[in-house]
Amino acid sequence: MYARPVSLAARLADLDSGRIGVEASLRESLERIEAVDGDLAAFVSRAPEESLAAAHSASGPLAGIAFGVKDIFDTADMPTEHGSPIYRGSRPRADAALVAMARTKGACIIGKTATTEFASMDPAATRNPHDPAHTPGGSSSGSAAAVAAGMVPAACGSQTGGSVIRPASFCGVAGYKPSFRLLPTVGMKTFAWSLDTAGLFAASVADVALLAELLTGRPLKVPPLSGAGGISIGLYRSGKDGDLDPQMQAAWDQAAATFEAAGARLVEIEEPAALVAAREAHGTVQGFEAAHALLDERSRHRGAMGPKILATLDAGAAILPAEYDAARRIARIGRKAATALFEEVDALLVPSAVGPAPKGHAFTGDPVMNKLWTLTGNPVVNVPGLLAQGGLPLGVSIVTRFGRDAEALAIGDLLERALARQ
Amino acid sequence: MYARPVSLAARLADLDSGRIGVEASLRESLERIEAVDGDLAAFVSRAPEESLAAAHSASGPLAGIAFGVKDIFDTADMPTEHGSPIYRGSRPRADAALVAMARTKGACIIGKTATTEFASMDPAATRNPHDPAHTPGGSSSGSAAAVAAGMVPAACGSQTGGSVIRPASFCGVAGYKPSFRLLPTVGMKTFAWSLDTAGLFAASVADVALLAELLTGRPLKVPPLSGAGGISIGLYRSGKDGDLDPQMQAAWDQAAATFEAAGARLVEIEEPAALVAAREAHGTVQGFEAAHALLDERSRHRGAMGPKILATLDAGAAILPAEYDAARRIARIGRKAATALFEEVDALLVPSAVGPAPKGHAFTGDPVMNKLWTLTGNPVVNVPGLLAQGGLPLGVSIVTRFGRDAEALAIGDLLERALARQ
Repeated sequence: MYARPVSLAARLADLDSGRIGVEASLRESLERIEAVDGDLAAFVSRAPEESLAAAHSASGPLAGIAFGVKDIFDTADMPTEHGSPIYRGSRPRADAALVAMARTKGACIIGKTATTEFASMDPAATRNPHDPAHTPGGSSSGSAAAVAAGMVPAACGSQTGGSVIRPASFCGVAGYKPSFRLLPTVGMKTFAWSLDTAGLFAASVADVALLAELLTGRPLKVPPLSGAGGISIGLYRSGKDGDLDPQMQAAWDQAAATFEAAGARLVEIEEPAALVAAREAHGTVQGFEAAHALLDERSRHRGAMGPKILATLDAGAAILPAEYDAARRIARIGRKAATALFEEVDALLVPSAVGPAPKGHAFTGDPVMNKLWTLTGNPVVNVPGLLAQGGLPLGVSIVTRFGRDAEALAIGDLLERALARQ
Repeated sequence: MYARPVSLAARLADLDSGRIGVEASLRESLERIEAVDGDLAAFVSRAPEESLAAAHSASGPLAGIAFGVKDIFDTADMPTEHGSPIYRGSRPRADAALVAMARTKGACIIGKTATTEFASMDPAATRNPHDPAHTPGGSSSGSAAAVAAGMVPAACGSQTGGSVIRPASFCGVAGYKPSFRLLPTVGMKTFAWSLDTAGLFAASVADVALLAELLTGRPLKVPPLSGAGGISIGLYRSGKDGDLDPQMQAAWDQAAATFEAAGARLVEIEEPAALVAAREAHGTVQGFEAAHALLDERSRHRGAMGPKILATLDAGAAILPAEYDAARRIARIGRKAATALFEEVDALLVPSAVGPAPKGHAFTGDPVMNKLWTLTGNPVVNVPGLLAQGGLPLGVSIVTRFGRDAEALAIGDLLERALARQ
């Protein structure tokens, strides 16, 4: 209904050929925001006139591209409120590193996108562009919705549990959670320092790969793979698969069959015990770190915090250092076990969420399918293109070895194109 | 001349027994600051009246303790300026995690201590309490000087190269750089995210260990070891030892002999090639990360930055992602090599700096003796008590295996007490 993503690659080609100018391209984004954001509430603030004027004369590979920034990243020209009344009107002195990277490449930071409170589970006001009665997911709610609705061709978010991949799945766009610390988190509000991962959204996998390459200077742009011959895909079966909606199970099966038809070898993988334990350890690592990261807010502004984040912080404050250290050891063993999986296969195929976006706006969905890979730090790409009955999107994820981000993006792109041909 | 550190343990005992009250203890710190900080310039801002009043009625194990906070840690009640005019008057909305930890334990954040510009090499105005004609070292210049001069019994700083251990050595106080991420860096200005380590200062090793225990709830307080029987100490010989001032060489020899006399077994260790390479990789990791962390400042406020940090950032911006990745691989191998050292010995004994504090204030000293251990993340404790001719302090460092912080503190305390008996 509102879903109409704009391809970054196509827009850059149009800018490059002169079919559209920088100012006209940015105006198109502003007009789309004007037209639909009253209904979708993806943005919590918009760029001031001076910043728009500066973007009109910007140069660099992203000149003319409107970029949405999750409102936990600092911006010097707009408030940064973390989805919390505690930070109402707060204006940092400098841009976050990722924001500065986007600006120096010519992008226009067109506005700040809605986040759940401190990127946790108390929801933002944002609605799903595919059906506003449903959640867009969280915590990067606004960035996923803004890209899905074509308000921007590119946006950034962050993931501590499932906050990039889950909203990308719910909104039917590409989401990319890079290898841990491939994108800097400097100037991003910390929730859990050993989990927080900055990520990106764009219309397609090819678009998000191009975005990542232009931002970082790393060779991430997808190659035009013609088939999956020689590629092995692990169907990663976890103890959490019982939580899957039958429609997500069917989407997973369809993605696997699509890979097989393209020539890939499918390999059944039972989740190793070390990774069962690692998923269980996620909550301890997250809770202990969050209770420290947000200690001042919890101590001095308790009454201004939502019930879900308070419950997480209160539980986290009760975790002893020895329990945290034990969870970190389990995480370290889990990272090695995750690396070992890729001795057998090139990539894993896993569901991006337990099902389509839940109805309502109080619950942003379950991160159970994502949090293990956030803890291990492996790159994950949400591949859009599959649908549930009624038209809500269903995403599947490609996971590769730590540092093999280009491979995750290339294999995700292959799947996305193969699905589109069906 | 101004050097007169106040023991945290002694002050806490006095508070506990009622020999001094909370308000009187804080007043003593304020009066000492009033008396000497005009000459030493350790503080860049002081707590407002409301914060002092709140501290008078604080409870917790650190109630009555004046705590100095390096001015790269956010404070909600005082400006946080990072030693840079770009941040003049900047006031964050929340306390950094470590500051909030200190406050919730009852400490009074009595002021912000001077830092070199962005905790790099352009100096602060601070002078060395042992001789104001000399540098106190950097980048945690003010915290080290404030503890040495007895303005506060406790302070925090940070180390990316040698910014805790070097000023502790130059100022003759205990400095503790914990295992990487034992203390949270949330709300601390990032210079290089895989190196930045929050650390602590106090009068003696026993004091800094007590401080760390009270802040974190971890069992770090030193036990009363009576001798070094059964302990093996590695004399770590690196290719950089040619840089040592003969007085530091003599101090190192004296510390080794002291250990031996206390019953320790001394082991000669030649620096392994993996650690030679790791030290060389430090600059690449630091430069690449700093160029991203401070991209906005460098892009928009170049004219307001000092020559040393600009040179570091400009060089860092020229480092390619592939060069950075290669340096990170070398660092990872170095961490394993560092761990392997402790299969042979319990602790390493190394110089904390190449010599005593240099004369003048333009140069804060060379971090060459420290940066390897910052990169590897091992705990390091500066042990005070040795002196150069003329009375300037010379520190030696105890380094232990990653995570064995309590051992580094206990062994450092043993050495400090043995030196005091000589």
